[in-house]
Amino acid sequence: MGVRINTIMQTCFFAISGVLPRDKAIEKIKQAIRKTYGKKGEEVVRKNFEAVDRTLENLHQATIPTTVTSTRELPLTVPAEAPVFVREVTAMMMAGKGDDLPVSRMPVDGTYPSGTTRWEKRNIALNIPVWEPELCIQCGNCSFVCPHSVIRAKIFDQSELSAAPKCFQSAPIDARGLPGIRYSLQIYAEDCTGCGLCVQVCPAVSKSEARHKAINMQSKPDSLEPQRASIACFEKLPYTERTHVDFSTVRGVQFLQPLFEFPGSCAGCGETPYVKLLSQLFGDRLVVANATGCSSIYGGNLPTTPWAQNSAGRGPAWSNSLFEDNAEFGFGFRLAADQQRRLAEQLLKELQPQLGETFVDELLCAAQIQESEIDAQRKRVEVLKLRLKDVADERAARLHTVADELVRRSVWLVGGDGWAYDIGSAGLDHVLASGRDVNVLVLDTEVYSNTGGQMSKSTPLAAVAKFAAGGKHVAKKDLAMQAISYGNVYVARVAMGANPQQTLLAFREAEAYKGPSLILAYSHCIAHGIDMQQGLNQQRRAVDCGHWPLIRYNPEVRKSHENPFVLDCQRPTITFKEYADNELRYRLLKTTNPQEADHLLDLAQQNIWQRWKDYEELAIRGGEDFTLAGRLRD
Amino acid sequence: MGVRINTIMQTCFFAISGVLPRDKAIEKIKQAIRKTYGKKGEEVVRKNFEAVDRTLENLHQATIPTTVTSTRELPLTVPAEAPVFVREVTAMMMAGKGDDLPVSRMPVDGTYPSGTTRWEKRNIALNIPVWEPELCIQCGNCSFVCPHSVIRAKIFDQSELSAAPKCFQSAPIDARGLPGIRYSLQIYAEDCTGCGLCVQVCPAVSKSEARHKAINMQSKPDSLEPQRASIACFEKLPYTERTHVDFSTVRGVQFLQPLFEFPGSCAGCGETPYVKLLSQLFGDRLVVANATGCSSIYGGNLPTTPWAQNSAGRGPAWSNSLFEDNAEFGFGFRLAADQQRRLAEQLLKELQPQLGETFVDELLCAAQIQESEIDAQRKRVEVLKLRLKDVADERAARLHTVADELVRRSVWLVGGDGWAYDIGSAGLDHVLASGRDVNVLVLDTEVYSNTGGQMSKSTPLAAVAKFAAGGKHVAKKDLAMQAISYGNVYVARVAMGANPQQTLLAFREAEAYKGPSLILAYSHCIAHGIDMQQGLNQQRRAVDCGHWPLIRYNPEVRKSHENPFVLDCQRPTITFKEYADNELRYRLLKTTNPQEADHLLDLAQQNIWQRWKDYEELAIRGGEDFTLAGRLRD
Repeated sequence: MGVRINTIMQTCFFAISGVLPRDKAIEKIKQAIRKTYGKKGEEVVRKNFEAVDRTLENLHQATIPTTVTSTRELPLTVPAEAPVFVREVTAMMMAGKGDDLPVSRMPVDGTYPSGTTRWEKRNIALNIPVWEPELCIQCGNCSFVCPHSVIRAKIFDQSELSAAPKCFQSAPIDARGLPGIRYSLQIYAEDCTGCGLCVQVCPAVSKSEARHKAINMQSKPDSLEPQRASIACFEKLPYTERTHVDFSTVRGVQFLQPLFEFPGSCAGCGETPYVKLLSQLFGDRLVVANATGCSSIYGGNLPTTPWAQNSAGRGPAWSNSLFEDNAEFGFGFRLAADQQRRLAEQLLKELQPQLGETFVDELLCAAQIQESEIDAQRKRVEVLKLRLKDVADERAARLHTVADELVRRSVWLVGGDGWAYDIGSAGLDHVLASGRDVNVLVLDTEVYSNTGGQMSKSTPLAAVAKFAAGGKHVAKKDLAMQAISYGNVYVARVAMGANPQQTLLAFREAEAYKGPSLILAYSHCIAHGIDMQQGLNQQRRAVDCGHWPLIRYNPEVRKSHENPFVLDCQRPTITFKEYADNELRYRLLKTTNPQEADHLLDLAQQNIWQRWKDYEELAIRGGEDFTLAGRLRD
Repeated sequence: MGVRINTIMQTCFFAISGVLPRDKAIEKIKQAIRKTYGKKGEEVVRKNFEAVDRTLENLHQATIPTTVTSTRELPLTVPAEAPVFVREVTAMMMAGKGDDLPVSRMPVDGTYPSGTTRWEKRNIALNIPVWEPELCIQCGNCSFVCPHSVIRAKIFDQSELSAAPKCFQSAPIDARGLPGIRYSLQIYAEDCTGCGLCVQVCPAVSKSEARHKAINMQSKPDSLEPQRASIACFEKLPYTERTHVDFSTVRGVQFLQPLFEFPGSCAGCGETPYVKLLSQLFGDRLVVANATGCSSIYGGNLPTTPWAQNSAGRGPAWSNSLFEDNAEFGFGFRLAADQQRRLAEQLLKELQPQLGETFVDELLCAAQIQESEIDAQRKRVEVLKLRLKDVADERAARLHTVADELVRRSVWLVGGDGWAYDIGSAGLDHVLASGRDVNVLVLDTEVYSNTGGQMSKSTPLAAVAKFAAGGKHVAKKDLAMQAISYGNVYVARVAMGANPQQTLLAFREAEAYKGPSLILAYSHCIAHGIDMQQGLNQQRRAVDCGHWPLIRYNPEVRKSHENPFVLDCQRPTITFKEYADNELRYRLLKTTNPQEADHLLDLAQQNIWQRWKDYEELAIRGGEDFTLAGRLRD
């Protein structure tokens, strides 16, 4: 039964309360179990029946003493060093006393303090990962896939360790020419959900013991004091300067601070690693419009929020409007940023004589793709702000208010398939058609996850979902091909579990592309009815069977007359069935209607072959020069 | 100035009224003319100036006599033989006295009498087409393209002419083996708008005079009595039985009665010929959900409606909901029809012993694609209704209420590009994704026509529209490719002016396909700023330059392992500029910003080449067998 307690608690209630005669109640409970779980298979029914019986066997009366005898004190809800707002407002909500808060304590403009999940040590994991520095190859995979940002890496000079506690783990960095530089992988034990994805993804295995890896799940220790001391030490170490980080590899990206941490998403969530990656890559330049769905819940939860700030106190700006208007909402962020930037540019030109001809030209023409270029522009803006103080012109003050817009913003529209394929599809289509520089991340679970598993247009053929109880009869909408039909939209389909390096490349290309970009990110989900620890392996199978072909379509390369369509995976190596058999959403129908299940699986397989052929034909084309000059040359 | 009178009337008003001093007023009018029409070119300004001057020269006082001296009586608004509702309600509205009608005269359930445009003889044309039976090759093209259904053809036995008036025109039928059968082409002079499309499309030219065709525009005669007599005679002749008509050719289709006639659309409208064709092909089986737009205005206008009935008093059912929900609205028609048919089928099976085993099997399994099959099923349903009277079972009465649903309904969702590409795009996408048997006809004018020329996602690159005053910077959305990406949607792109035969084929294939179908129909429009008489020639140029490639994508042929994608036109033979130069929407920008105009036209040309290559590669593929058996054979 795992963590499921509803059957147990229900049995206790009816056994004690006397609402119904005990035997009658138990009989009714078992009838309800058969009705509710029957279609999930006999094994599930049996387990529930057993849970009922064992509950009754183990039901004992507990006597509550009349006086308090314990000498232990309840710890503070949040530590004393937490910010005032967290201590006075957030902690009240965490303690379940939110109703006692006066309205006057709420932020008046709706802006909500971010980075507060760190104060809510949920301690929900029974087992947590433990790092083995000697085995570790420092590849960064565990950190990359962690859905809750609880595995972080830093590099630092050996000298920094003088004050480190004994329990602090580190190893020499696995790179040449850096003597004295050490590497540390820190696990935030109290924030970990114990999902185990990190262990699944770890490629480093002990030579002596095949199942022992460089990171392994172990029972969480009773005393967390050493862990806390270790984390405190780790937190004091600075993150590597962003300009020194290799953004192009998973190995490099582990050194970027996540500005999205400890979200309230499910253990093993398939969505949050992508969201965290956004926060790492684009940091405080990131502006997110979030559609309603899981990501708006774990992203904008009360009492705490996972969107966080860097050491300078800056972080991504995030907001959620409605389910149906997120694309339009985020498009507004883009328009506003562009408008403010245009104003800044205009004022810069007007004040060019006072500010310096060359300096203004540099500010106006700065390339801002690489992190070093962004950094250089930030520094120019700081200089600009200083110089503006000495300019005796009322326009100087106005320019000061919009100067920050000269640093390129990274606008992202984030949501699930329920938003992108269905409810917000017209808005999404409209924004993609605009040609403007917005980036769209679709966390594609192929079903309405947050609202309870309803079919969306992303739900695959043959899968069972609410409103598709007999298995979905039509194929999944190919949103990638729809977007590609515009010709000027960057489109990628990624699956972190199949190819994290391709995921990383797509995120960076999408953001660098000066037009609309769309990333469809395969997100395994509890709604699939899978062992969540196997989530990343299922992602790989989805790609291997051809259900989820990895692609990138980059209109930019057309300028060099290359084919914009790239297929980033090989021909299917397994059947659709080999993938589908691991997921309850496909297996369910076998129980209720095996013939129909076989028929639909067969159709799904045909559909995969057909689509694969389309994709392959697109990928093998040559590029061509469609400019007038190019045509005349031919 | 053509039919434009605003400048003239305005000049009269200010010259007489004394609101401003006369000279001052005229000066202001001319300023306003320059401001309003300046961007349309110096020629337009000059013509308006001249209109002002000539108005002043010809302004005379008219003296109104104190007593009525005329002996002429005003004719009745509608003739005495019109139905009661038309005489008592419609005619009141036509006479501008609608406010005097009591609410009790309105239909209580919102169902509105159809086929009433025929009572509103608008007589707006100055010139009307005149038929030359000797030159005519009876091809049916003029009738096919007529936007107002004012050109109709019938064939009949010579003996029917005994009572015909002298003015009635006819010719021997241009077909072998039919002695004594005559052909007549009737022009409804009082309903004609004088657009001249029929003359443009007529392929039969006099050998002695190259500009003289088998149909020619002539000044409308003062007396219409002979015309009326001729029409009255023509109306008495029966239409050819639908089962005897050759549905597969334009020549054949002219003999189908249009159940959409004399709409209030613009003279030369590019949309209505498609709507009329729907009404001819699918007759009284047609159910139309109409999106808001031009087609909902001319389709559901008050006081009169162009949707009409056949001699049996049956016609298409038509309704308009909102702009944003038309696909969903029409989808409901499909669901309702399917549900009623299922009920009928179930009752048929239950009553099979009483009704006859074979008879019921025939009713249930009837193919209903060809008109002869539809007719056979209709006859079976009539027999069924008779037999039901003798069945002593309460289910017989229930079956009677749904028996008509055993004849296949033809459900169409009709609207413009503003609906299909923009405002209703999510609903349309949803319905296409459903896999259900609905047919979508998009009357694509590439702009919001009815609301005054605003840009839609269908507006082409380089065209000027409201919200794209500087020319549209992004390419037209390729809705065809978006729909094709589903794999199970029938998709066609047609242009009646370029290939009427392909249009006809697509309409019939779409309707026969047992799944969602989408037809994008190029509709020239006054919003394009063209000489409307050249509308069909512009359609041909749109195809010839590659802007509007004619395609058909029929998933049905995949069953025989053929390529579903067919390109129905040849490689571009003219440049985009050669097409665009005929339309003000493209020329406008040349006046205001010639450099940008050239740039955008160049981009549009590149875009055409690029898309053409995509289309061609899709078209040259072979088919493939994607079933398991097929794969095993390979």
